[in-house]
Amino acid sequence: MEKQYCQLHEGPIAGAVEGSEDIFEDRLHEECGVFGVAGRSGCAAARMSYMGLYALQHRGQESAGITVSDGHKMICHKNMGMVRHVFDETIIDGLIGTSAIGHVRYSTTGTSSVVNAQPIVARCLKGMLAVAHNGNLINTAALCDELAQGGSVFQTTSDTEVILNLIARYSTESIESAIRKTVSKLKGSFSLVVLHGNTVYAVRDGGGNRPLSLGIVPEGYVVASESSAISSIGGEVLRDIDPGEMVILSPDGIRSQRVLPPTKRALCAMEFVYFSRADSVIEGRLVHETRKEMGRQLARVSEIDADLVVPVPESGFSTAIGYAEQSGLPLDTALVVNRYVGRTFIRPLQAERNMGVNLKLHPISQILRGKRIVIIDDSIVRGTTSKLLVKMLHEAGAKEVHMFISSPPLKYPCFYGIDISASRELIAATCSVDEMRRSIGADSLHFQTIEGLQQSIGLPDGLCLACFNGEYPFGIPRGCDCGSKHILEEEQACL
Amino acid sequence: MEKQYCQLHEGPIAGAVEGSEDIFEDRLHEECGVFGVAGRSGCAAARMSYMGLYALQHRGQESAGITVSDGHKMICHKNMGMVRHVFDETIIDGLIGTSAIGHVRYSTTGTSSVVNAQPIVARCLKGMLAVAHNGNLINTAALCDELAQGGSVFQTTSDTEVILNLIARYSTESIESAIRKTVSKLKGSFSLVVLHGNTVYAVRDGGGNRPLSLGIVPEGYVVASESSAISSIGGEVLRDIDPGEMVILSPDGIRSQRVLPPTKRALCAMEFVYFSRADSVIEGRLVHETRKEMGRQLARVSEIDADLVVPVPESGFSTAIGYAEQSGLPLDTALVVNRYVGRTFIRPLQAERNMGVNLKLHPISQILRGKRIVIIDDSIVRGTTSKLLVKMLHEAGAKEVHMFISSPPLKYPCFYGIDISASRELIAATCSVDEMRRSIGADSLHFQTIEGLQQSIGLPDGLCLACFNGEYPFGIPRGCDCGSKHILEEEQACL
Amino acid sequence: MEKQYCQLHEGPIAGAVEGSEDIFEDRLHEECGVFGVAGRSGCAAARMSYMGLYALQHRGQESAGITVSDGHKMICHKNMGMVRHVFDETIIDGLIGTSAIGHVRYSTTGTSSVVNAQPIVARCLKGMLAVAHNGNLINTAALCDELAQGGSVFQTTSDTEVILNLIARYSTESIESAIRKTVSKLKGSFSLVVLHGNTVYAVRDGGGNRPLSLGIVPEGYVVASESSAISSIGGEVLRDIDPGEMVILSPDGIRSQRVLPPTKRALCAMEFVYFSRADSVIEGRLVHETRKEMGRQLARVSEIDADLVVPVPESGFSTAIGYAEQSGLPLDTALVVNRYVGRTFIRPLQAERNMGVNLKLHPISQILRGKRIVIIDDSIVRGTTSKLLVKMLHEAGAKEVHMFISSPPLKYPCFYGIDISASRELIAATCSVDEMRRSIGADSLHFQTIEGLQQSIGLPDGLCLACFNGEYPFGIPRGCDCGSKHILEEEQACL
Amino acid sequence: MEKQYCQLHEGPIAGAVEGSEDIFEDRLHEECGVFGVAGRSGCAAARMSYMGLYALQHRGQESAGITVSDGHKMICHKNMGMVRHVFDETIIDGLIGTSAIGHVRYSTTGTSSVVNAQPIVARCLKGMLAVAHNGNLINTAALCDELAQGGSVFQTTSDTEVILNLIARYSTESIESAIRKTVSKLKGSFSLVVLHGNTVYAVRDGGGNRPLSLGIVPEGYVVASESSAISSIGGEVLRDIDPGEMVILSPDGIRSQRVLPPTKRALCAMEFVYFSRADSVIEGRLVHETRKEMGRQLARVSEIDADLVVPVPESGFSTAIGYAEQSGLPLDTALVVNRYVGRTFIRPLQAERNMGVNLKLHPISQILRGKRIVIIDDSIVRGTTSKLLVKMLHEAGAKEVHMFISSPPLKYPCFYGIDISASRELIAATCSVDEMRRSIGADSLHFQTIEGLQQSIGLPDGLCLACFNGEYPFGIPRGCDCGSKHILEEEQACL
Repeated sequence: MEKQYCQLHEGPIAGAVEGSEDIFEDRLHEECGVFGVAGRSGCAAARMSYMGLYALQHRGQESAGITVSDGHKMICHKNMGMVRHVFDETIIDGLIGTSAIGHVRYSTTGTSSVVNAQPIVARCLKGMLAVAHNGNLINTAALCDELAQGGSVFQTTSDTEVILNLIARYSTESIESAIRKTVSKLKGSFSLVVLHGNTVYAVRDGGGNRPLSLGIVPEGYVVASESSAISSIGGEVLRDIDPGEMVILSPDGIRSQRVLPPTKRALCAMEFVYFSRADSVIEGRLVHETRKEMGRQLARVSEIDADLVVPVPESGFSTAIGYAEQSGLPLDTALVVNRYVGRTFIRPLQAERNMGVNLKLHPISQILRGKRIVIIDDSIVRGTTSKLLVKMLHEAGAKEVHMFISSPPLKYPCFYGIDISASRELIAATCSVDEMRRSIGADSLHFQTIEGLQQSIGLPDGLCLACFNGEYPFGIPRGCDCGSKHILEEEQACL
Repeated sequence: MEKQYCQLHEGPIAGAVEGSEDIFEDRLHEECGVFGVAGRSGCAAARMSYMGLYALQHRGQESAGITVSDGHKMICHKNMGMVRHVFDETIIDGLIGTSAIGHVRYSTTGTSSVVNAQPIVARCLKGMLAVAHNGNLINTAALCDELAQGGSVFQTTSDTEVILNLIARYSTESIESAIRKTVSKLKGSFSLVVLHGNTVYAVRDGGGNRPLSLGIVPEGYVVASESSAISSIGGEVLRDIDPGEMVILSPDGIRSQRVLPPTKRALCAMEFVYFSRADSVIEGRLVHETRKEMGRQLARVSEIDADLVVPVPESGFSTAIGYAEQSGLPLDTALVVNRYVGRTFIRPLQAERNMGVNLKLHPISQILRGKRIVIIDDSIVRGTTSKLLVKMLHEAGAKEVHMFISSPPLKYPCFYGIDISASRELIAATCSVDEMRRSIGADSLHFQTIEGLQQSIGLPDGLCLACFNGEYPFGIPRGCDCGSKHILEEEQACL
Repeated sequence: MEKQYCQLHEGPIAGAVEGSEDIFEDRLHEECGVFGVAGRSGCAAARMSYMGLYALQHRGQESAGITVSDGHKMICHKNMGMVRHVFDETIIDGLIGTSAIGHVRYSTTGTSSVVNAQPIVARCLKGMLAVAHNGNLINTAALCDELAQGGSVFQTTSDTEVILNLIARYSTESIESAIRKTVSKLKGSFSLVVLHGNTVYAVRDGGGNRPLSLGIVPEGYVVASESSAISSIGGEVLRDIDPGEMVILSPDGIRSQRVLPPTKRALCAMEFVYFSRADSVIEGRLVHETRKEMGRQLARVSEIDADLVVPVPESGFSTAIGYAEQSGLPLDTALVVNRYVGRTFIRPLQAERNMGVNLKLHPISQILRGKRIVIIDDSIVRGTTSKLLVKMLHEAGAKEVHMFISSPPLKYPCFYGIDISASRELIAATCSVDEMRRSIGADSLHFQTIEGLQQSIGLPDGLCLACFNGEYPFGIPRGCDCGSKHILEEEQACL
Repeated sequence: MEKQYCQLHEGPIAGAVEGSEDIFEDRLHEECGVFGVAGRSGCAAARMSYMGLYALQHRGQESAGITVSDGHKMICHKNMGMVRHVFDETIIDGLIGTSAIGHVRYSTTGTSSVVNAQPIVARCLKGMLAVAHNGNLINTAALCDELAQGGSVFQTTSDTEVILNLIARYSTESIESAIRKTVSKLKGSFSLVVLHGNTVYAVRDGGGNRPLSLGIVPEGYVVASESSAISSIGGEVLRDIDPGEMVILSPDGIRSQRVLPPTKRALCAMEFVYFSRADSVIEGRLVHETRKEMGRQLARVSEIDADLVVPVPESGFSTAIGYAEQSGLPLDTALVVNRYVGRTFIRPLQAERNMGVNLKLHPISQILRGKRIVIIDDSIVRGTTSKLLVKMLHEAGAKEVHMFISSPPLKYPCFYGIDISASRELIAATCSVDEMRRSIGADSLHFQTIEGLQQSIGLPDGLCLACFNGEYPFGIPRGCDCGSKHILEEEQACL
C-alpha cells in the first residue's frame, strides 16, 4: 500500500476554537476523552452525554461528537470546536435515543479535520456501529495493510476507523466476539467505547494506560474517561474498568469479561501530574491528593530557604498547597492569570512583546518584591514558558526564584496518546538540570525523582513512565502510514 | 443485514442553500453533475474544476466538492451549499494538484447531509481513490450485502461509497481492471468519474442514461456531465463518451475501452426537455434547438386560435420561440420573474397569500388584458404551479389561457437519478388530461406526444421514456436498504 | 467644520452580498428603493414591508432595513446584505407594529457600512422618528454646517441623517410642518418616507426625479418606489405621488398637500431604460412597453441588413422584442447567462481568462455561425463589457456584429442618485461613436437619439437627461463634505 | 418629549457571548471599562487598546469597541461580543492611528444592542469626536429634554450619546471648554474618555466613584479603568486620576486641570470586594491585599470552630487566604470549577437538575467528608447560588458549613454603574441574617460589617456604600426616559 494520505478540507468552523496563548502553548496535550451511556426507556442519552463531554472538555478541545441510538437507528453529530460550539439546544433535541457514546479530541492547529472527529459511525454486516477511542495504537499501519488486502477502505486518518473496520471484519458471529477478536489484534494504548443497538461496550487495554471509569445513573449505566465526569453529572462512580476488561452496558445491567490476558500495569503517570481533573479518582487515588503529596515530597527533599510559595495558575495549585503545608512557608497567589487571553489573541509585534507577555500572566510585584520565591509547576516541555515566568518574577522584584517541578524531566516522546513531540523539542532530552536552570534563569531548579513520583501516586509498580525513562511498555510503532503526523516524525527520530 | 441507517448531523451551513420558492418548487430535480480533469504539470486543476462546477450548478445545488491529486497526495474539500458558498479563494488555493474530479448534488430539504457530499475519497490497497457519480443504481442493497459479508463498512448512504468499496475490493490487479469489474456489477444509471494518482477514469452505463462529454483544454483533458461546461471554461468539446465506454484521461493523452456490452440506448429524454443547459450538445443535438422543435411540434398539431405566446420564465423560453415561429403568433414576456425570491423567502401567512403568490412571478396585465394566451411550460409535476399560474393570468385579464407542455404527461417515477417521487404525487398518474385541465383551470391543455418528443429530439430509438411510459430500461430496485428515501418509497409503491 | 469623516467598521456580514461578476460589473447602479405602509390594527407591517423590499431588491442590494411602529414604540432592524440575508422569520416576527417604512440600498464594495443603512431612526422632541430616502442632495455640506452650528452631531455619512436632523430641528410645532420646512431647504433629488407614530409621510422633490407610487391594500395604505412593488404584493396602485407633493398615510386614510412650488418636471430617463422593473408603470407608461418602443425606434432608423436579433440577458430583452417586431428579423436567445456566477466568483488568473469570460455569458455558436447579428443592450458605461461581448460573438462564428443601444451615449456623471462615476470613466465622455465602435470591435454601433428616447418614453418635456446632455435640472453640489465618495470626486472633476 | 424608545435589532453575532451559567448568574455585573492612549508617531494605538481591553475584559463582556485617530480621520470598530470575537488581525490592522479610546461593556441578555456599543463617534462643529464612558448618570432624562428642545436627536439609549451631544452643543470655543461645561451638567457617576484629533481627554466625577488610572508607555500616555491594565501591557502606572480632575493626554505630554469642585469622595467599595482585578491598585491600595485583609477581619471576629477553609472559585480566593492565615486553619481547594460551562451551556431539564448543578462547580467529597467547613464568598445577591453551594457541600459529606461573606449585606440598588437590580431581588433587602442563613441552609452565616470593610480597604471616609446603607452620594434619578431598563424599574421601585 502506497504511503498516501488524504487531507479533507471542511468549511469554516462556526465558533473559533479556543485555548491558551502560544507563549503559554508550551504545555502537554491529552488526545481524547470518551463517554458512554446505556439508558432505559426515557433516558435522554444525548443530553447526558453532552454534560459528560463538558466534564471531559479539558481532555480535548479540538472536536466533539455524540452518537445516539434508540436501538434501531443511530444519529451522529460531530464537528470541530469545543462542546459549546458543536452543540446547541436544537441539535441535542434532534439526537433522539436512549443509549449514546461521545468523544472530545484535543486541540491543535495542524492536521486536524472534521473527518477525524469521533465517534466514527458506519453500517456493517450487523447494522450500525459507532466507535470512540482514547489512546494511540502502534500497529495501525500493519492493521491497515491487512484490512486493505481484504478490500477495506479508509476515509479518515484515525486509529478509530481501523478499529471499526476490524470489528466489522470479525462480526460474522456477534459484535461481542468481534470486539474480543479486534482488541486482541491491537497494540498500544486504548480505552474504547463501542455503540451497537442500545448496548455500549467499554474496553481498556491490557496495561490500563488510559483511565476508564464505570458508573450508575438513575436512568442506566455510564462509562467515562474520568470518574469526575460521572460524579459531575450526578452519577455514582462504581469502579475503574480493569485493564484488559470489557464491560457490556445495557439498559438493564452490566456484564463483564476479561478480553485480554494479564500484563504489567502501565497507567500513565502524567494523568496524575497534569491531565486528569483534581477531583477524579484513579485506582482509588484522588488526583488532587496525589498532587499535594508531590508537593510535600518536593518540600521534604528541598534544602532551599525561601519566603513564599507561589503556584503557577492553574495546574500548580494542588502541588503548591502540599509544598506550603510541608515546608511551613506561606502561599500566596502572586501570579494573576487573564483567562480571556486565548488562542484567538492577536500576537503582539516584536516591539510590543513587553505588552503581550504580561497580559496572559501578570505578577503582583507588591507581593514579590524582595522575596525569595518558590514557584511550583507541573512539568517542563520546551522550557520557553518557564524562562518567561522566571524573568517576569525577577522583573517584578523577586530576590530569588526557585523552581520546583511536580514531575521528573520529560526526556522521551509519548506514543500512547499524549502530544509530546519528538525528543528534540524536549529541553530535558538534551540538557542537564543545571543547563536547564541556566537556560531558564532560575536561581535553582528541582525536579521530582521517579521514585518520588511513584510514592506520591502510591502505585510504585503500575505506572507507565516512558516519557521519563524511555521504557515503553507497549512498544513503539514501525512502518506506520495511517497514524498522525507526530507519530511518523517519532519514527524518524527513533531510527 | 438489518435495515438501519445513520443520519449524520453537521454544523450549520455557512451560506444558506438557495433555490426557488416552494409555491414554485413544483419542479423536477436532477441529482448530480460531475467534472474531471487530468492536467499536465502546471495545471491548476482545482480552479478549472471550480469553474466547471459553476457551469454545472443547475444540475445540483445541495452540495459541492472537489478532490485534487498531484499524483501522490489527494486533498478534498466539500460541503453543503452551492459552489459559491463551499469554495473561496483560500480553499481553492489550498487544493494543490494537477488532476481533479468535482461534483455538484441537487438541492432538497430532507435527508441531505455533508457525509453524502461527493467526491468520496478513501485510501485502499492501491492508495488514495476518489469517486463521483451521476445517476442512480437499483441494486445497491444487494451490493451492500455482499460487501458487508466481506467486512466492508459504510459511513454514508450514497451509491458512490458502494462503488468505491467495490473498486477497492477488486483492486488486487489494477484500478483499471477493478473499475471494469465494478461497473459490470452495477445495475442502473451511472456516469462515473474516478480519480487515482493523476489519472481520471470516466465511465458511462451501457444505456448511456446520463450524458458525459469529453473535451480538451490547453493544460490537459477534461470530462463533464454537459458539453456546455467544457465550452464555458474555454475548452474544446471532443465528443460524448459512449454508453458502456471507459475513457482514461491522463495528463498526456486519453485511452478508451469498451467496458460494458452493447445494450439498447436509453438516454434520458428529460435532459433535453428540462435539465441540460440550452447550449449543451448531446448526441450531436443542440438542446436549445430540440426545445424550439418541441415548440414547433406543439404548434403544428395545435388547433387553438390565440393572440399571444407567453413563455414561463425561465424554462419555457426556447420552446415558446419555436411555437411563436411556427404559429406566426407574436411572443411577449408578459410574466416577470423576481429572481430574488428564493428558498430563504419567508412564507406568507394565509392572509397574505395574495401578496406572496405574485411576488415570485408577476403578470403584466397591460399586455394580457383581453387576450387569448398561449402559455408554454416544460412539464407538469403536481400541477400546483400551473394552477396558480393560470389563475394569475386570468386575474390579470387574459380572456383565454391555453397551456402547452413541451413533454408528455409525467406518469411514472424515475429510478435513474431524477427526483420524481412516488406516482401518487404526479397529477398525470391519476388524472386524465381533461381532469388536469379542469384542476388547473386552463381553457385548454396540450401535452407533447411521445412521438412528437422523439421526433423533436431526433433520437426515436435511443431515449429512456420511463417517466412517460413506465418502461424501465435498467429495471427497478428491490430490497434496497441503503438507497435514498424516495427509492424506498417507490419500492413500496411498486408492491 | 473640518473636513473629516469617520469610517465605522462592522463585524463580518452573515451572508455574502451577491451580484454580478466584475467583468460584467460594467453596469449602472441605482442608489435606493423605499417602501412605506400605514396599516390598521392587525396589519403585519413588517411582513408587508419585507415583501415590498423583495419587489424592490433590484434597486439596491447593499443593505436593507425595516422600521416598524405600533404608534408608541419603534423597532428597527437593518444590516448589510440583501433582503434574504438581513431578515429571517424570527426577526420579522420581532418587528411588531402596524405601520412601517423600509429601504434597500445599492451594492458596491467601497465605502459601504451598516451605519449608513436605512431607515435612520432617532428620538427627537416629538418622540421617535424614522427616515428613508431615495435620491441624492447637492447641498448636504451647507445643511450640515448650519446644523452643526446649532449643536447637531452626525454619526453617519448619509444624506438621510441630515434630513432627520432638519426635521427634528424644525419640529417645535408638528412633524408635518417640520417636514414641510425641511424639504424646502433640500436641493437635489429625493423621494422620502418618514415614519412618526403610526403615520407615514411620503414626499417627492419638485422635479419628481425618482418615482414614488401610492397604493392601497386591504389593511391600509402603501407607498413604494415602484408601482410593481405594490401590485406584486397584491395591492392596488392608485397613482404616482406628484412632484412636490406630500402624501400623509394614516391607518384610516390619506391626505395630500403640495409642499414644494411647481418646477420643471425632471423624471430620470434611465428609470425607463434600465432601472425600473419592466412591469412598473411610471407617469402612466408601462416600462416594458417604453423599452419595446425604444427597440422599434432603433429599428426604424436602422439601415443595417442582418439575419438575427440577439438580446443581451437580461436587460436587453424588451428592447430586442421591439426591434425584432419592427424589423421583421427573427429573435433568438443565442447568449446563455449563468446566473450562479456572481460577486463571490473567484476571479480567473490571467492564464485562465479564456475560461472565466465565457462562464458568465456563453454564446451558442450553432446559432451564430455565419450570421449577421443585431445585438441589443441598454447602455454603455466603460465599454469593457461590450468589447468582451463582441469578441465572444465573433469567436462564436458571427459574420457581423451590429450593436444597438437603447439609450443615448452616457457622457456626464449623475448627481441625483445613480452611481455614474466621474466622466473620465464613461467611454462616451471622451470618444466619438466611431472611436467607441472601433474600441468595442463591432461592425457597427448605434445609439438611441435623445429625441428617440423622449418619443419612446412619451414624455418629451418631463425627463432629466443630465447624464446624456449635461443639463442638470437640480444643479450640482459644491463644497460638500458629508456626501459619498463619488460626489467628492465629481466635484474635483468639475473644477 | 414622549416616553418612547427604539430598539435596534442587529444581525446575528458571529461568536456567541459567553459567561457563567445562570445557576451561577447570581452575581453582580460591572457596567464598563474604558481605555485611552495618546501616542507619538509610530504608536500602534489600536493594538495597544486591544491589549488594554483584554486586560479590562472582566469589567464587561457584552460589547467591545475601539476608535482610533491619526489626528485627521477617525475609524471606529465595535460590535457585540467579547474582545476576542469583535476584533481580529485584519480589523486591528485597518484601525490606523496613533491615538485611540476603547471600551468594554458588561454582558447581559436583555436590552443589549450594537447601537449602544461604545465608543460613540460623531462629527460635530469641531470635527470628529468619540466618547466612551464608565458609570451611570442620574439626570439623563432632563439632559435629553433640554437637548431635544434645541433640535438634538438620539439614535441610542446610552448616556454616552447624551454626553457627546452636550460636548457638541458647547463646542463653540474649544473641545476642552466644552468638556468642562458638559461635566458640570452631569449628575451621577462617570469616568469618561473623549478622543478629538490626537488628544485624549480623561475625566472622573467629583466623588471619584469609578476608578481611572494614568500611565506612561514608551510610545505615549495611557489611561485605563484599572491600573492593572496599564501594567499588564508593560506600561508604568503614574497615579490615579483625581476625582473632579480632567487629564489631557497628547502625544507629547499630559496636562491636568480641576474641572469639578471638591465633593466628598465616594469610591465604589465593591471595586475592592469584587470588580477590580486582584493586581489593581486603587488609591494606593493593592486590591488583593484589601481582600486578604477582609478575610483576616472576618476571622478576627469569628467564633466558629472549624477544620478547613474552602474558597469559592474564583472570587473568594484572596479572602480565603486571609481567613486561613488569621485563623490558622488549613485551606484546601475542595471545590473544582468547570470553566467550560458558560452561558451557552444548555440548561438541564428538571429531571436532570442533579446532573447540571454539579457540573459547573463540583465538591471533592474525599476532602470534605466529616469536616466542619468555612466557605468564603464575596457577596450574596439573590442567595440562590449560596443555597445550591451549601446543599452541595452537605451532600458531599461536610459536617458543618459556615459561610463567610467579604462584604456587608447588599440591601439597596446601585444607580452608579453596577447591575444590582431592584431591591426586591436582593435577599438581604427583605430578610434578616438569620432568615438568610435558614434560606441558604448554612450552619452559620457571617457578613463583614461596614466598619470591617472600611478598615480592610483602609479608606474609612472615602467610599460609596450606597448598596449597603442606602446613602446615595450622587442622588437618585427621577423622570428618566433614556436610561437602561433596570434604572426605570428602579425608579418604580423608588416611588
